[in-house]
Amino acid sequence: MIKTRPYVLVTNDDGIAAPGIHALVQELKKDADVVVVAPDSEKSAVGHAITLSDPIRVSCFNKSGQWEGYAVSGTPSDCVKIAVGALLDRRPDMVISGINLGSNAGINMIYSGTVSAATEGTILGIPSIAVSLTTYTNPIFESAASFAVNMMGIVLSKGLPDRTLLNINVPNLPENEIAGVRITRQGMANFAETFVKRVDPRNRVYYWMDGKKEEISDDDDVDDEAIKHGYISITPVKYDLTNYKFIDTLSNWLPEILG
Amino acid sequence: MIKTRPYVLVTNDDGIAAPGIHALVQELKKDADVVVVAPDSEKSAVGHAITLSDPIRVSCFNKSGQWEGYAVSGTPSDCVKIAVGALLDRRPDMVISGINLGSNAGINMIYSGTVSAATEGTILGIPSIAVSLTTYTNPIFESAASFAVNMMGIVLSKGLPDRTLLNINVPNLPENEIAGVRITRQGMANFAETFVKRVDPRNRVYYWMDGKKEEISDDDDVDDEAIKHGYISITPVKYDLTNYKFIDTLSNWLPEILG
Repeated sequence: MIKTRPYVLVTNDDGIAAPGIHALVQELKKDADVVVVAPDSEKSAVGHAITLSDPIRVSCFNKSGQWEGYAVSGTPSDCVKIAVGALLDRRPDMVISGINLGSNAGINMIYSGTVSAATEGTILGIPSIAVSLTTYTNPIFESAASFAVNMMGIVLSKGLPDRTLLNINVPNLPENEIAGVRITRQGMANFAETFVKRVDPRNRVYYWMDGKKEEISDDDDVDDEAIKHGYISITPVKYDLTNYKFIDTLSNWLPEILG
Repeated sequence: MIKTRPYVLVTNDDGIAAPGIHALVQELKKDADVVVVAPDSEKSAVGHAITLSDPIRVSCFNKSGQWEGYAVSGTPSDCVKIAVGALLDRRPDMVISGINLGSNAGINMIYSGTVSAATEGTILGIPSIAVSLTTYTNPIFESAASFAVNMMGIVLSKGLPDRTLLNINVPNLPENEIAGVRITRQGMANFAETFVKRVDPRNRVYYWMDGKKEEISDDDDVDDEAIKHGYISITPVKYDLTNYKFIDTLSNWLPEILG
């Protein structure tokens, strides 16, 4: 139960005009004061990119009279940074990034602008979650939107550990067909990239990246596996990249490293 | 001691014309067969961005007759993907990303194209290291270059654990002034971002991101601290982002999540 209305910063990587962010804002508005600061165009797969070498433009965006927001000529990470650092006059209680069209489970997490925006919120000390719908076609955003609002209440009442965000992936099913919720770890199925080689109208070669995620059978506690079986997956993500387990072994290499 | 000459893929995020990659290639050529596939222009702070919505162009690059390489109209991650997936006729034994101008220690690691390229190599199952020189002015690349070649030999003979790369930061000192080598963990000092608000000649507002890393006193085993004291830091980086420690607690939230 949320007593006072929280102030929530919403962003995404599909762009401020995308249907996923609209579904999220509409549901969220019932329980929270919402401010939207999102990229002015699609910024998928930008990872944790930030804009240092170019100016950043901010314009007003009006979603058919239903809500207003700031459209930013930058990446999802830029949006969170500029919102907190320049645009907002008070600090948000929470950052929600999404609802992304397409899964951000497994190895995708590394490339995801959606997850990076939530990471950015976490770096700034604001409890943050990323929400994705695991489809590219015929999206049913309602389940994911109401789940996000539910999770907002829980996260705000319980808090999250240091440097940790939640990465939530929701299967594309009506609410009553979702099998349940699993706490998961990041799967490691790789992408098999292919590069399509083509020739443009001026006879110059170009490449276009394509790829398919490996189909591997994984443990039940892996995000992709949970989704495959109709569960919502929640993976706690920490942005400390150190491989602590390897530190001792690596220390034993020192005599050779020092020559 | 390397018996057969390894085949090494070199990339960076400062662009193929940057002095750091040149210093690395010149040193590396003595002990390895080197192939350079690097961005055609500066791609700093692009994180793990990949190019999915645009074509990728590849052109030949000639470094004043000293070496040749492929210049790619994409990010550092793109370079590694397209090298292995399309350009090279055999698989490299190792990926070395650098030498980057500027530290990629601490929180910078998350935004770093240099580190992301090495991560990409690791994802593809190739032992990979990232090498950065912790200065933006008056770089002395020699120490970092010879250290990178030294580390290549060690990594090739010992191997690296699954999903793990080495992130190496070298202080900007002549070789005989470097204090030593420390195995480190990623520091967590944040950036304090500021946004400079300006008006362009057409009277439109724009912002420019600036920032300064927090100065915090940290433990000796933190990357930034090692560098500050003149040590080369080596941080083992793992790209599994799961916060395993929080999984049990989060599982206890399930009754409330399920409502």
